[in-house]
Amino acid sequence: MPRRDQHVSLAHGNGGRLMRELIEELFAPALENPLLDTRADAVAVPTPQDLELVVTTDGFTVQPLEFPGGNIGSLAVHGTVNDLAVCGALPHYLTVSTFLEEGLEIEVLRRAIAALAAAARACGVAVVAGDTKVLGRGDCDGIYLAATGLGFRPRGLRLALAEVRAGDRILVSGPVGDHGAAVLLARQEFGLRGDLKSDAASVLPEAQALLRVPGLRFMRDPTRGGLATVAHELARASGLRVQLAESSIPVNDAVQSVCELLGYDPLYLACEGRVVAVVAPESCPAALGELRKVAPGAALIGELQAGSAQVVLETSFGGQRVLDELEDDPLPRIC
Amino acid sequence: MPRRDQHVSLAHGNGGRLMRELIEELFAPALENPLLDTRADAVAVPTPQDLELVVTTDGFTVQPLEFPGGNIGSLAVHGTVNDLAVCGALPHYLTVSTFLEEGLEIEVLRRAIAALAAAARACGVAVVAGDTKVLGRGDCDGIYLAATGLGFRPRGLRLALAEVRAGDRILVSGPVGDHGAAVLLARQEFGLRGDLKSDAASVLPEAQALLRVPGLRFMRDPTRGGLATVAHELARASGLRVQLAESSIPVNDAVQSVCELLGYDPLYLACEGRVVAVVAPESCPAALGELRKVAPGAALIGELQAGSAQVVLETSFGGQRVLDELEDDPLPRIC
Repeated sequence: MPRRDQHVSLAHGNGGRLMRELIEELFAPALENPLLDTRADAVAVPTPQDLELVVTTDGFTVQPLEFPGGNIGSLAVHGTVNDLAVCGALPHYLTVSTFLEEGLEIEVLRRAIAALAAAARACGVAVVAGDTKVLGRGDCDGIYLAATGLGFRPRGLRLALAEVRAGDRILVSGPVGDHGAAVLLARQEFGLRGDLKSDAASVLPEAQALLRVPGLRFMRDPTRGGLATVAHELARASGLRVQLAESSIPVNDAVQSVCELLGYDPLYLACEGRVVAVVAPESCPAALGELRKVAPGAALIGELQAGSAQVVLETSFGGQRVLDELEDDPLPRIC
Repeated sequence: MPRRDQHVSLAHGNGGRLMRELIEELFAPALENPLLDTRADAVAVPTPQDLELVVTTDGFTVQPLEFPGGNIGSLAVHGTVNDLAVCGALPHYLTVSTFLEEGLEIEVLRRAIAALAAAARACGVAVVAGDTKVLGRGDCDGIYLAATGLGFRPRGLRLALAEVRAGDRILVSGPVGDHGAAVLLARQEFGLRGDLKSDAASVLPEAQALLRVPGLRFMRDPTRGGLATVAHELARASGLRVQLAESSIPVNDAVQSVCELLGYDPLYLACEGRVVAVVAPESCPAALGELRKVAPGAALIGELQAGSAQVVLETSFGGQRVLDELEDDPLPRIC
């Protein structure tokens, strides 16, 4: 018996036997759950009564596909779950659309799907629908994923950019930039080595801890564009000045070193397992207390102030530096 | 003032200013609806009471991006809406994840999103969440889309492969293979010209018409792998023989000609605007009557018979031919 080819072929995407076998032998066993029916065009899913349905979608193109702390499969789950978590929802269902390059090792795909399945299980979400397309060599670079997450949250939750006020405090759940720095290092383009690990993880514990605090106004996970970009979104939406204190912003030493070597600013590097939260000033001690129960590295890093809409960093030397919106710097395929 | 570059750059995916402008100036105005909030990580959407939530997802990589009868944007809507429609659901919400190649003309993207928006409006669905990633030149071929559709249907609807029985009749809503043949021709690889048009369209009217018939067992849109692949799915799931009558299967003359020239079988070519339906024998006249009110080209094309699980075509010459499951034939990027 000839050993079957262990690479993805164009016929794995044609709707016929090879595609069915790929789905039945690789995807279905890994993702198995009572709702998933790989033979159905669409599936019905239960909706808890008295809760609000919340929807998000995200594409994943990280390069390399596997990096210290995760791979594209686990990243797709964490990225999608986190968008629901910061909106105050508990994630329930995921859909996953997969784009594969002809010639990809099936084993690499298997590891990505295994990590995706493990992360989904750990987050309590079921993958309920999927799709697979195969692109010719050179029309895709390995694996791209698109995930949509469905979650449920209490009705009437007021958690939005529009809720932030002057005087509100800004918290972050841990050191920033680990994901971006770890992925940049893993590309090995720079001849650098290090034991940097991505922070990619579910922020459900952090988000649920913060939701217990009455003065919570807004949460966001600082992914592409990093903490500085969330700060800009806050300034733009509120018309307020976002004042950050450099000395209070946690940055791991290894991340700082990589940034200095490569000329990046950790405040613009992606996190995939952190939350930025805005809380009413009187709620700040309680919020920080709750957050530190699940994220010991959490810190108060700044506040919103009356003034023009800009982001200002009080540097460690006591100066003031305006943080610009991220411009042409490409930083492709960080997530 | 320098004229802005009219091509997608890597910085359009970095989370910063260019990405925000692309979303605010191109995506948001085209897709505008009361639920879409391009500044939110996730959005809450209303869920009708007493209905069942139905979910589907699909990737789109069609090549060329624009073809007679549609483009990748309208195709993404029709493909996703149709998966909900054949499950008996009315589509309500869509999420769209976009993968763009560096160097893509912004104008091509604008046309794709305009067609997507128009198709969504025509189908009564709101795009409620989106995401955009940019890949380097050669890591993507123009535009890939992943869409997830959410719809609602009456609870307790019994519509599944498991419902089909020996004696059930098989209907198709119109000529098969138009989409596949039109896309193959549009590639201009073969030096052929013709006025073939894709059948890509919503099958909501057809599906809703069939749902009025009590004996409806199952519906599916024959996309990748075509009618023959749906027949195989029926045979495999039911353990029954699927008997099709070649002379009853509608195939447009132009599609037949292209297939003969290029060596394809129209029964394996993708449709993007047809429905295959299985109905109880006593319901067949009513089903065909309802279907023909919205799809005059609908036809009774075969039945399920006791016997081994295979697909058999009674040819126009009176012979019997076993239709194999689609094998290695690649047919990439047909949808």
